[in-house]
Amino acid sequence: WRGVSQKAVQRLDISGVYPPIATPFTHSEDVDYHRLTDNLHKYADIPFRGLVVQGSNGEYPYLTPEERVEVVKKVRQALPKDKLVMAGSGCESTRATIQMSQRMADAGAECVLVVTPCFYRGRMDSRALINHYAQVADSSSVPVVLYSVPANTGLDLPLDAIIQLSQHPNIVGLKDSGGDITRIALIVHKTRSQGFQVLAGSAGFLMAAYSVGAVGGVCALANVLGQQVCELAQLCVSGRWDEARELQYRLIQPNTAVTRQYGVPALKQAMEWFGYHGGVCRTPLQPLTDSDLDQLRVKFTSNGWL
Amino acid sequence: WRGVSQKAVQRLDISGVYPPIATPFTHSEDVDYHRLTDNLHKYADIPFRGLVVQGSNGEYPYLTPEERVEVVKKVRQALPKDKLVMAGSGCESTRATIQMSQRMADAGAECVLVVTPCFYRGRMDSRALINHYAQVADSSSVPVVLYSVPANTGLDLPLDAIIQLSQHPNIVGLKDSGGDITRIALIVHKTRSQGFQVLAGSAGFLMAAYSVGAVGGVCALANVLGQQVCELAQLCVSGRWDEARELQYRLIQPNTAVTRQYGVPALKQAMEWFGYHGGVCRTPLQPLTDSDLDQLRVKFTSNGWL
Amino acid sequence: WRGVSQKAVQRLDISGVYPPIATPFTHSEDVDYHRLTDNLHKYADIPFRGLVVQGSNGEYPYLTPEERVEVVKKVRQALPKDKLVMAGSGCESTRATIQMSQRMADAGAECVLVVTPCFYRGRMDSRALINHYAQVADSSSVPVVLYSVPANTGLDLPLDAIIQLSQHPNIVGLKDSGGDITRIALIVHKTRSQGFQVLAGSAGFLMAAYSVGAVGGVCALANVLGQQVCELAQLCVSGRWDEARELQYRLIQPNTAVTRQYGVPALKQAMEWFGYHGGVCRTPLQPLTDSDLDQLRVKFTSNGWL
Amino acid sequence: WRGVSQKAVQRLDISGVYPPIATPFTHSEDVDYHRLTDNLHKYADIPFRGLVVQGSNGEYPYLTPEERVEVVKKVRQALPKDKLVMAGSGCESTRATIQMSQRMADAGAECVLVVTPCFYRGRMDSRALINHYAQVADSSSVPVVLYSVPANTGLDLPLDAIIQLSQHPNIVGLKDSGGDITRIALIVHKTRSQGFQVLAGSAGFLMAAYSVGAVGGVCALANVLGQQVCELAQLCVSGRWDEARELQYRLIQPNTAVTRQYGVPALKQAMEWFGYHGGVCRTPLQPLTDSDLDQLRVKFTSNGWL
Repeated sequence: WRGVSQKAVQRLDISGVYPPIATPFTHSEDVDYHRLTDNLHKYADIPFRGLVVQGSNGEYPYLTPEERVEVVKKVRQALPKDKLVMAGSGCESTRATIQMSQRMADAGAECVLVVTPCFYRGRMDSRALINHYAQVADSSSVPVVLYSVPANTGLDLPLDAIIQLSQHPNIVGLKDSGGDITRIALIVHKTRSQGFQVLAGSAGFLMAAYSVGAVGGVCALANVLGQQVCELAQLCVSGRWDEARELQYRLIQPNTAVTRQYGVPALKQAMEWFGYHGGVCRTPLQPLTDSDLDQLRVKFTSNGWL
Repeated sequence: WRGVSQKAVQRLDISGVYPPIATPFTHSEDVDYHRLTDNLHKYADIPFRGLVVQGSNGEYPYLTPEERVEVVKKVRQALPKDKLVMAGSGCESTRATIQMSQRMADAGAECVLVVTPCFYRGRMDSRALINHYAQVADSSSVPVVLYSVPANTGLDLPLDAIIQLSQHPNIVGLKDSGGDITRIALIVHKTRSQGFQVLAGSAGFLMAAYSVGAVGGVCALANVLGQQVCELAQLCVSGRWDEARELQYRLIQPNTAVTRQYGVPALKQAMEWFGYHGGVCRTPLQPLTDSDLDQLRVKFTSNGWL
Repeated sequence: WRGVSQKAVQRLDISGVYPPIATPFTHSEDVDYHRLTDNLHKYADIPFRGLVVQGSNGEYPYLTPEERVEVVKKVRQALPKDKLVMAGSGCESTRATIQMSQRMADAGAECVLVVTPCFYRGRMDSRALINHYAQVADSSSVPVVLYSVPANTGLDLPLDAIIQLSQHPNIVGLKDSGGDITRIALIVHKTRSQGFQVLAGSAGFLMAAYSVGAVGGVCALANVLGQQVCELAQLCVSGRWDEARELQYRLIQPNTAVTRQYGVPALKQAMEWFGYHGGVCRTPLQPLTDSDLDQLRVKFTSNGWL
Repeated sequence: WRGVSQKAVQRLDISGVYPPIATPFTHSEDVDYHRLTDNLHKYADIPFRGLVVQGSNGEYPYLTPEERVEVVKKVRQALPKDKLVMAGSGCESTRATIQMSQRMADAGAECVLVVTPCFYRGRMDSRALINHYAQVADSSSVPVVLYSVPANTGLDLPLDAIIQLSQHPNIVGLKDSGGDITRIALIVHKTRSQGFQVLAGSAGFLMAAYSVGAVGGVCALANVLGQQVCELAQLCVSGRWDEARELQYRLIQPNTAVTRQYGVPALKQAMEWFGYHGGVCRTPLQPLTDSDLDQLRVKFTSNGWL
């Protein structure tokens, strides 16, 4: 692909807001497809661009390959046609990632979200990562979105790798969960001529990301406050920054609480408060302690959401 | 001060752009007051709100206490009256910081910038830092600005400490060089009712910081491209975000190069290219290697500044 | 199990040296069972206590569950009966780890080595990890060895969790690859009354670990210099510390080179130099650059091994 | 000095145990020379090789240059002639370090301990540090000991710099407080032909350090349990490793408690329990909370020291 003309190809438009959906489990920790579908019906009324299935919040490392594919199938069936399914297909090895990407495409995903492999992080330099992503993108029948989430992987996809990969015609964008706004701005600056699209990986810096040229966000908090996150995005897109700022402020603490601070168990708990099915996580993730639960609630009440 | 009414007191307005000025040395590594004054005369034409004297870029850890005070005196004498002198007065111990703050005020500084003590960083929790800053602010005859610069100190001033300290009538704001935009937004959200003012600590995230409510910036790059950094700030203040974004993009790489990437020696080198006196650093800071020098130049040329 | 008497139960003796064997691949990246068996035959002459199959050096995150089990089966068949097979069975979820541990036992492993789950490392506190390991140990038909490898997982199994887990009758020891010798000494101090056994996770600190009470090591370098690592262990066990020290010195640089510095590709390269089958890694792991290859060789030649 | 013959020069023998003494303060936070002298008299009965004055535990960053020199003078006067005074003379700039080293020598110090400058840690590479230390050693009238303490400085003196500096005739050794035993062994391996001497920077890994070739230790805990730390060293020197191990075990938790865990305030508290003057620290260091105090006591009682 390095030989292709470097002018922008026509790429899938991925701009907009996505909740990286949680995976509900029964009390015996099996995937609860009934409750999952229920959530999807509720999400249908919210102006999401689509859903991310099996981002970090979907507990994908705890699902078998078969479960990962089955969940995507179920989501695609339950979702209106105009919503995108962006399916997490990242695995540690390139060959497994290629295979999983194809299975996700076959299951109906419009594009795949590929997290950086990370176990041998000391060896995951630009050379290794460019090779990995290029192989995946070369073979995938649907577009690829890069995914950098250092809080989980201990690894930030390097800028030079992103720039080179942005020239691949089958790589359409990046979900950046690191939140370094200087880096996000620089990525946009260096890749926009390729039509490369950057999505903020969290509601905490969604407005700032829009301000420097991002085109959307994959926001855990959108599982809980989906309408509000979409409203924030809309205010940014239409240049109503003063209103956006006030809304952004009130979303930061709830967002931090359901992500970095208390993690997926908190996200699922908050979903319950707002009428969705959250429920338990798979072990070893533990339920919140009572004290954490109280703290979590405060982050929503003190910002006027509960 | 915890007993004072929590309504906003009338605080010194620190909004605007500041270069944290470099300290020129002669080849024998003495402070070169002549070249310093020369730089100040050139800065006089740029719409800075003031100058930061002895931020990290001023090599203050390499100056004796006497030199620190003398430099502030010289700057105050050379600077037009309408420009603020914000003088770095932080030391490791509280008693030394109190004494240095008073000497800075006596030397003419309008306010002092107090970096977090950090040598015993494992013990510098909120309790210790609140105690430190409160003692300094209680005794200082000029307003205090908090200063968090984790790249140098290995320590981020905790949010809860900032919130509590924002209620002190003699603490007017914060210079945040960490660049975590979510944190910056949250700080503004939690302290603006006190009239507390947040300054971005770098040109790399200046626009994003303005977008979430910061009121200015202390930007190393302003030593080199002062007019442009001021223009960026002005575009943000007047809500011309699309123009701001284009300018912001072109400042990121030069900024990173003169700060995190190549440090003070690069800042001083770039100053030479743009007509200021930079010169050598005090040892142990070394001049750039030829290879680093080439890379540094590219960051300016490729963004259209050289 | 918290109810069991806390006196030491009779535990599997795991003392001694283990190479965490590499997994040879064909050029199409399939597992090369022929070359694997060849290596095993060569290892048979070395006084190893056993082999670790699917530690980090076995590229286990790149193997399918079926491959993981199949490799263990083949190793068990090829290995003399008096050598232990310690099989890596860790997965991210507790349920998958339980299942994999059972499959490993069925494939003939004498014990299982269970790495800390780590993807949600922010939530993997002592509570979560104790729960995880206790469930795995409760259900496993063979003894469990804990495995802490922060360089890959970004997570150190906390001391209090180790102490509590050391009381479980089916948890026999720990492989500690972190290399903090103070921590290793303290772990021995706090768990030896339970008969809990600590293995050094690297040849770099094998002698120091023995000096503070460890009983063996799982050493990547033993894939290459197996006889020498066993000799070092024997010198330590027999209290010939002065001779041990001289040998230890010469193993440090080669060990660092095939682990932290250049990783699995270097380990496999060095195996080729010493008459074993190493070969390529699965992608995304890349072959060494020529320059790294030269450096790697120097680490062996300058210490008198090549 | 690079031109000198690389055979070992006759160097000051620094082998043995040193407490890095604490600096007692009055309640108004002035140096309490009376209590300091009192401590020194008690230390005279313990077979220390000497004292370190103004290591990290001496709160040297909180002392003025004048106080630093004065304390060294007082210690030299109070100490028997056969004990070494190793005086911390490190400052951020090379010129200040040179000057302080001379003042320490003039005050009677037999050698100086020079911590790595660290504020601009991003620029403190081997080139800068070699230059710094070589200048200091060239000009110093007494031998220089390198000092690497990453917990405080965020910087580990690189191995290649140590190796090169070990060839300087006026650099006699290194205090390594990082505690990476693999690194310590490698440093000994690479520098012992020069007569370079390595001191462990903590009692927590003193035995392990001896096992790989260190010749002594600078141990905060020796302020409290000086006799016992000397006994541990003696057991190691005379090859009684089994007895050494038992004693080492019991020193780890008290040592961690007075260093990394609770810091200088804990060290000073423990000194009070054992008949020395500890007292308050200078602000911003805070006294221990009641809860920390209880925890600290447990670390001594549960190991049989209180």
